Amino acid sequence: MEQSFLAWLRGRVRNLPAASVGVGIGDDAAIIDVPVGQQLVATTDTIIDQVDFVFGQHAAVDIGFKAMAINLSDVAAMGGVATSALVTLSLPSTKATETAAAIYEGILEAAQKYGVAIAGGDLSVYDGPLSISITMLGTVPVGAAWLRSGAIEGDVLIVSGPVGGSLLGRHLRPHPRLDLVSRLREAVTVHAAIDISDGFSLDLDRLCAASGVGVAIDTERLPIHADAVARAEATGRKPLEHALGDGEDFELILAMSVDDWEKIQSQAETWGLVRIGKFIGRTGLWSTGEKGLQRMLASGFIHGQKRDSGLNAIGLGNAPH
Amino acid sequence: MEQSFLAWLRGRVRNLPAASVGVGIGDDAAIIDVPVGQQLVATTDTIIDQVDFVFGQHAAVDIGFKAMAINLSDVAAMGGVATSALVTLSLPSTKATETAAAIYEGILEAAQKYGVAIAGGDLSVYDGPLSISITMLGTVPVGAAWLRSGAIEGDVLIVSGPVGGSLLGRHLRPHPRLDLVSRLREAVTVHAAIDISDGFSLDLDRLCAASGVGVAIDTERLPIHADAVARAEATGRKPLEHALGDGEDFELILAMSVDDWEKIQSQAETWGLVRIGKFIGRTGLWSTGEKGLQRMLASGFIHGQKRDSGLNAIGLGNAPH
Repeated sequence: MEQSFLAWLRGRVRNLPAASVGVGIGDDAAIIDVPVGQQLVATTDTIIDQVDFVFGQHAAVDIGFKAMAINLSDVAAMGGVATSALVTLSLPSTKATETAAAIYEGILEAAQKYGVAIAGGDLSVYDGPLSISITMLGTVPVGAAWLRSGAIEGDVLIVSGPVGGSLLGRHLRPHPRLDLVSRLREAVTVHAAIDISDGFSLDLDRLCAASGVGVAIDTERLPIHADAVARAEATGRKPLEHALGDGEDFELILAMSVDDWEKIQSQAETWGLVRIGKFIGRTGLWSTGEKGLQRMLASGFIHGQKRDSGLNAIGLGNAPH
Repeated sequence: MEQSFLAWLRGRVRNLPAASVGVGIGDDAAIIDVPVGQQLVATTDTIIDQVDFVFGQHAAVDIGFKAMAINLSDVAAMGGVATSALVTLSLPSTKATETAAAIYEGILEAAQKYGVAIAGGDLSVYDGPLSISITMLGTVPVGAAWLRSGAIEGDVLIVSGPVGGSLLGRHLRPHPRLDLVSRLREAVTVHAAIDISDGFSLDLDRLCAASGVGVAIDTERLPIHADAVARAEATGRKPLEHALGDGEDFELILAMSVDDWEKIQSQAETWGLVRIGKFIGRTGLWSTGEKGLQRMLASGFIHGQKRDSGLNAIGLGNAPH
């Protein structure tokens, strides 16, 4: 790597918000403040060329942005505020500096947009595919993280926006729903949350399994993204199938009490929230309709099994197996 | 990856100390306590087959141990206490599960030995070389991290143990000097610290540059490791050259006042500490001897330049450039 690149990077990083970072790049480790009354949120996710994206086909700036956004989404799913990131790039030796700079454009764009400092990281040049590994750090009020395991029978099921068809391009530019965290914390108690990375029904199933409850989904209310409709035209499947099974929407699935939902109902639409069902004592996913409860199977990306795209990443910190 | 591997891993991880981890593997992110009066220490370092080690030649358990140890050493160099790690493995598809299990044996051994929880991570299978990326988290008392920049003129220069020749095998089984942190914090005020990853003289030069001071080294007092002597026999260079220039010792270089040094002098030897010089106003590295101050050049692994082994990793968070 050229020294000029590192000088450029350090200059760019200095311009980011860094209120919580006491010591950033340039020492053996970063020193970060966690205010009294807060706990640390920490998550890490890696994306790799030919596994999670296709370098050349997907723009480097988008790949960098996505690497940040998927980690920011995990912080949002915990009800956290993201403060700083550690960024590790493993770069193919051909045009390593150009690649690093282009990827960093997207990383810095996301950092600026979501108010996150780059507190440190690592750069390697190697004989392998481009890989971007980010550790995102943040804070949550002590004891008030939104876990997957907190949904209870009677809670309403909420999704934070339309889902499906992200593969048409949205998956590269996700909008992690950090905006919802302060809004919801001010108004209600979220019982449980998860972000939709592997598919609405699969991630909902994980939340149910962690909480020991089931869920009755009014599938007619599920907000289907226009991209899911467009995808359905290409695949011959139903838009609803894409909405239920496609991954990388990065919207949140939320559980809260009926009373809390009624408190925020007037603003909920503005925030993108839609009530689409309720959590029930009987385990499993169920659709509600004219015929009564019908069993649904979770569909989506099953960890550890290759699917068409060759995806084969397992989020150790991000998903129960 | 096989589900049985993940089940095994989660069982093993549960047996580790995890006092500070509120939520570990299995949610969107980990939740970690940072006690009142403490700041977070965060560092990340990646090691890659053919860049930092040679898979097949070096045992997988050692590689896993080393990946943890180099990060633990960075926490020690900040005067921190390590609490938890996020572990990311990128695995070649051939025998991915066996490789992951063998690497994790070393990771878990280090976690057990140094009292660190595995709070999360990521696993990918890809068409590339084995890569292990670890983010280590810990705590330091607020405002009391041992920075590189705190050495002042008149401070004594201390090294925590013999250096040189780690390539003979020690580099795979480093002993991060976390043991020194509580001992020194109880007795003295450390002004500055750095761990020796790229070579004694090079890392000392970095500390001096960050502190805006120079250093006069009594090279005859520098503790030379027996491995440096052995290496010198093979290379024809002097043992002192290996002690000054070889990397991956993972001992600490420390700066403190003369008064503080005298306070701990009686125990210092037991802890491995040796006083080998003093920090001076005149910048640069200088050796003291019969001829008076002689200019020394920092030698060691210069980041971003390939050396014989093909090493080409740049610690963004761990080293100034």
